[in-house]
Amino acid sequence: MLMLTVAASSSLLAEDGYELWMRYRLLPKSKRVAISQIVCPNPTDRHLKEAHSELKTGLESMLGYSVKVGDKLTKQDGLVIGTALSNEFIAGLNVDLRPFNDEAFVYLPTTINGKRVHVITGQDQLGVLYGAFWFLRQLQSGKPLPNKRYYSAPRYKLRLLNHWDNLNRSVERGYAGQSIWDWHKLPDYVDPRIIDYARANASIGINGTVLTNVNANAMVLRADYIQKTKAVADTLRPYGIKVYLTARFSAPIELGGLKTADPLDPQVQQWWKDKVAEIYREIHDFGGFVVKANSEGQPGPQNYGRSHAEGANMIADALALEGGILMWRAFVYDDKTPVDRAAQAYNEFKPLDGKFRSNVIVQVKNGPIDFQPREPFSPLFGALDKTPALMEVQVTKEYLGFATHLAYLGTMWQEALASPTRLRGKEKVLDTLTGIAGVSNIGSDRNWCGSHFDQANWYALGRLAWEPTLGATKVADEWARLTFGTAVAKPVVSMMIRSREAVVDYTGPLGLTHLMATGHHYGPGPWVDNLGRADWNPVYFHRGDRDGIGFDRVGAGTLKQYAPGWREIWGKPETAPENLLLWFHHVPWSYRLLSGKTVWEEMVARYTHGVSEVATMRAEWAKLKGKIDASRHLQISEFLKIQEKEAKWWRDASIPYWQSLNGLPLPKGFDVPEHSLDYYKSIFHPYAPGNTHTG
Amino acid sequence: MLMLTVAASSSLLAEDGYELWMRYRLLPKSKRVAISQIVCPNPTDRHLKEAHSELKTGLESMLGYSVKVGDKLTKQDGLVIGTALSNEFIAGLNVDLRPFNDEAFVYLPTTINGKRVHVITGQDQLGVLYGAFWFLRQLQSGKPLPNKRYYSAPRYKLRLLNHWDNLNRSVERGYAGQSIWDWHKLPDYVDPRIIDYARANASIGINGTVLTNVNANAMVLRADYIQKTKAVADTLRPYGIKVYLTARFSAPIELGGLKTADPLDPQVQQWWKDKVAEIYREIHDFGGFVVKANSEGQPGPQNYGRSHAEGANMIADALALEGGILMWRAFVYDDKTPVDRAAQAYNEFKPLDGKFRSNVIVQVKNGPIDFQPREPFSPLFGALDKTPALMEVQVTKEYLGFATHLAYLGTMWQEALASPTRLRGKEKVLDTLTGIAGVSNIGSDRNWCGSHFDQANWYALGRLAWEPTLGATKVADEWARLTFGTAVAKPVVSMMIRSREAVVDYTGPLGLTHLMATGHHYGPGPWVDNLGRADWNPVYFHRGDRDGIGFDRVGAGTLKQYAPGWREIWGKPETAPENLLLWFHHVPWSYRLLSGKTVWEEMVARYTHGVSEVATMRAEWAKLKGKIDASRHLQISEFLKIQEKEAKWWRDASIPYWQSLNGLPLPKGFDVPEHSLDYYKSIFHPYAPGNTHTG
Repeated sequence: MLMLTVAASSSLLAEDGYELWMRYRLLPKSKRVAISQIVCPNPTDRHLKEAHSELKTGLESMLGYSVKVGDKLTKQDGLVIGTALSNEFIAGLNVDLRPFNDEAFVYLPTTINGKRVHVITGQDQLGVLYGAFWFLRQLQSGKPLPNKRYYSAPRYKLRLLNHWDNLNRSVERGYAGQSIWDWHKLPDYVDPRIIDYARANASIGINGTVLTNVNANAMVLRADYIQKTKAVADTLRPYGIKVYLTARFSAPIELGGLKTADPLDPQVQQWWKDKVAEIYREIHDFGGFVVKANSEGQPGPQNYGRSHAEGANMIADALALEGGILMWRAFVYDDKTPVDRAAQAYNEFKPLDGKFRSNVIVQVKNGPIDFQPREPFSPLFGALDKTPALMEVQVTKEYLGFATHLAYLGTMWQEALASPTRLRGKEKVLDTLTGIAGVSNIGSDRNWCGSHFDQANWYALGRLAWEPTLGATKVADEWARLTFGTAVAKPVVSMMIRSREAVVDYTGPLGLTHLMATGHHYGPGPWVDNLGRADWNPVYFHRGDRDGIGFDRVGAGTLKQYAPGWREIWGKPETAPENLLLWFHHVPWSYRLLSGKTVWEEMVARYTHGVSEVATMRAEWAKLKGKIDASRHLQISEFLKIQEKEAKWWRDASIPYWQSLNGLPLPKGFDVPEHSLDYYKSIFHPYAPGNTHTG
Repeated sequence: MLMLTVAASSSLLAEDGYELWMRYRLLPKSKRVAISQIVCPNPTDRHLKEAHSELKTGLESMLGYSVKVGDKLTKQDGLVIGTALSNEFIAGLNVDLRPFNDEAFVYLPTTINGKRVHVITGQDQLGVLYGAFWFLRQLQSGKPLPNKRYYSAPRYKLRLLNHWDNLNRSVERGYAGQSIWDWHKLPDYVDPRIIDYARANASIGINGTVLTNVNANAMVLRADYIQKTKAVADTLRPYGIKVYLTARFSAPIELGGLKTADPLDPQVQQWWKDKVAEIYREIHDFGGFVVKANSEGQPGPQNYGRSHAEGANMIADALALEGGILMWRAFVYDDKTPVDRAAQAYNEFKPLDGKFRSNVIVQVKNGPIDFQPREPFSPLFGALDKTPALMEVQVTKEYLGFATHLAYLGTMWQEALASPTRLRGKEKVLDTLTGIAGVSNIGSDRNWCGSHFDQANWYALGRLAWEPTLGATKVADEWARLTFGTAVAKPVVSMMIRSREAVVDYTGPLGLTHLMATGHHYGPGPWVDNLGRADWNPVYFHRGDRDGIGFDRVGAGTLKQYAPGWREIWGKPETAPENLLLWFHHVPWSYRLLSGKTVWEEMVARYTHGVSEVATMRAEWAKLKGKIDASRHLQISEFLKIQEKEAKWWRDASIPYWQSLNGLPLPKGFDVPEHSLDYYKSIFHPYAPGNTHTG
């Protein structure tokens, strides 16, 4: 271990994950493409500076020789970059870019003045930057360059990170250290790390970031914090990343000294107009706000008897004057215990469809509850006909084992994105969206995400927001090649692809959900029944008793929120997919599944399988020793060991709890849980990370 | 900036401060010492493995060739390391080590079997490890090796870091990120960074570390946390570093379920004995506890009508059975507002002198109040005749500008250590001590301490604890050579040496103290007068009014706590040193100093001088551009800019406040403060770092 941390071994030192998927290691000779020069007239233009710098650094590092940047095309095999406006050589090619949006890029192998060239261009220089990162990625991952024109355009306009970062640098549900925004030192000192954050995001097409927690603090709108935000915005702008903030609905009271935040009050409206104007004076391309209102204690328009639409439109009107947008979260539940928590977002927002201003986007979590390892898609995606929707996914693994568990989320997001919202129509969730926002897993840890594999989830967010039909496996393969090298990509991808289903199995199989310990959500707590309101308790969600288990969402009426085809399929236990059986139905423990096993037997088998899947991942990883640098290999080995221990903890705590309800024996052939139920119930972890309410 | 952060430039990447003073850069040819091999029989022995690994890595890096480790002496210019017991070649030399303690080391250039060798030895292998680090330091700093026997032994047995780190990884008064102890992942995952922490500490002779905050949490004594602590102890042990914890006095109630923590209660006594035995079963060389009792809300023996001695002795008895020690803090103040806060530690502890068990050490802050930029030494150092004392200094800069201000503390600690406790006798503070404990400035930031220059304070703690008469300038010179290179050491040292006095000047000249803003202590707050108790308020400490300023500690009786010689000198304004004038005396604003200036004129001059000193440091630093790697140079430049801005903030806020009391005009020739007093009073920073009570 010593060697890894000592100065001399800088090549090993570097493998601490800081470089993410932009490692640019020297390519094997057979993979080196001849690039003689970078031709970039007007090299200081917006985004072009970043594009040619990155290309120069990356190419020199991968090819092993010096690559000059200049404005003359003098050699064979030059790399010509820019837009038609900035680059006369490209202008001469007359590339037709009209069908593409202004973030698209085109790669073109061709000849100019008799010289073979690679061309990267786009309508806008931002496209050139995206193309530069694509080009480097192709080389890095050992893939051949296309031999004809290749173009790529993002599917969505909004490809966002949501940081749940507080002004004291704690991160709600963050497992990777502190917030990368060091508000105390801003604006005078901007950590150079923020440039690397921008590079990483631009490399995967992310074009916006919400700096602050949805549980918002009005202070961030104070004049000195606007200066701090401006310093971040100025640093991110060259990489095409816009800055957004969360707006606390009661800010006019807390910051403005008003007596109310009522959206129909003219003083309140004026306060928001003035505040928005103040922000845009400093940050001309400010993106807008995210608002969490009337949810989990946050203030909102309902405090004044107004609707979500009235609240949203008031702030949206202020933003519209400056070109900003408002993302209004649909994750709401009021202060009465509902028949079904899963039904609330729809119940609140469906009646408001069509009542929002055109610059309001409703931000909807992928599933109807809360980022669980498996949920069906939210019914709002099929129900908002007149209101644009943004899908919110959680990159940070609040419910999937924090940083130490390997759980690749690409498969989960693909499942949501590919869901048909109407079974007989063609529309899929992805067709209803204007974008994707991912709750960031980024922090001050050296490896950014708390674990090396969690970098894959950041990567997948960007790639799937750019191209949602790319497929989780393809994304995993790209990432594995860039991060660990092409030689080991296959086994790494195999681990990644099975990883999320393993978590589903060891935490909540067959559509069970929300069974974790209170507050921090670390470890199992299916027995919890004493929280402040019924729908915070796991027992509310699983409805287990002596006779059966599962939430009857047919009886609760929730199924009606989905389109008719879904009502038929999900409405009967026999036709519902088994992986959502207990989400939609309460069935007897003796209910038989297709396998011939009872629900109880299948649950025990799944819990056990989840644990054994982690053991398999450990074994697969162990085989890669020596094929991956020792430092990352060791850390991942140790994390997988923790994951196996904690998977077993979930299994061994859950099984005796269900037995305490159903009185059934352990099916034959399965290991008896290691400890008693009382033992597992007594486990108490007050300082588990990510819980900023108590931390 | 881009180049600094990009993968390819690994040599630049490395200069992010992570390597501390152990950079081991290739030496210029003229400075390379010929070392042909490392001769270390029994290379896996305790501490020897770490010694030869570090030597191999360091030498190879500095000399530019491979250096083998073996058990045969085969070449000229070998480096022979070990103890007489572990190394036959050294046994043959018959080095007389009896006069030295078992942490000392000896370096010896000699011949063995006709071959020129360098020998590093000691009575114990820990001495060999210390010698190895000394040897590497000599080479790194471009100094010649001694041409005859050289030995070095630590002056104090206890050379400790105190981490004020909480179990949720927040750090009280920490300005360098989160705690390096990741309790959540321990014991299963130990960050390799902890090995580098151990290396850094061993390199400067630190031999113990208190992992947890003095504002203690009983939870750290729970069985699972003992396993976590054991994992840290196991990692630090090879480097000669013992682990200590803070013990919450009420732990028998909170953890043990007892009804009382009364030290005379047999059940309480038994609980501590059992708990200590449990710890030692897991960590055989556990160091012991630090206790903060009956101070700032912490529970203690006085809750049960018992004395500090009764409380301390009860826990000390439990530790004595296992060989542990108890460090009992003298930083106490009870719940009544005292005539003089500065008098309290003495008032409480002087009467208890001689009543403590032999394994109790009273831990006394260097000054009588609280780590202010300047205080006289604590009177307890001259008063505890029968009780061992440990000096507690604050490495983290709670009162000296957090991480962004450059303030080298070696000069401050030297001032305390060199203070004669009796003016006519010879005894100095340093003669009364058993050790030094420094409140850590270490965190998860890449550069460990939040700023590059703050690394010097960690370094100085170790070096002065080893050799307290070394002198702050010598220590600064060592550090500057190791950290920035020999070529720039002179100007760097010049900045360091003037830096602390600059802070004194711009925050509280002439012996003023405790004038900072509430809670986080960021920025000026001399006007604060509304806190929960009188002696929390700056106005309590400065006693300024229309007529004069300063705390009359003669009238308060506090001066009597010092020896007679001091009473005479400090007792009169004419003989008291001007830099402590207002600490001991309340004088009229018109009081004339030696310079001929009035106190008011001198105060304004000092505030102004403090700011100009920072401007001078900035100018000196600017001249080093190009002589220091760009990355560190830039960060330090930006921090110095912040320091100048904040020094001016202190000056411009303080001067109008004093004018609001004394009604005097600004002396001629001085700049008018930039804003009004009301402006400065309105500044409000709720999220300044380090304040874990509110953070």
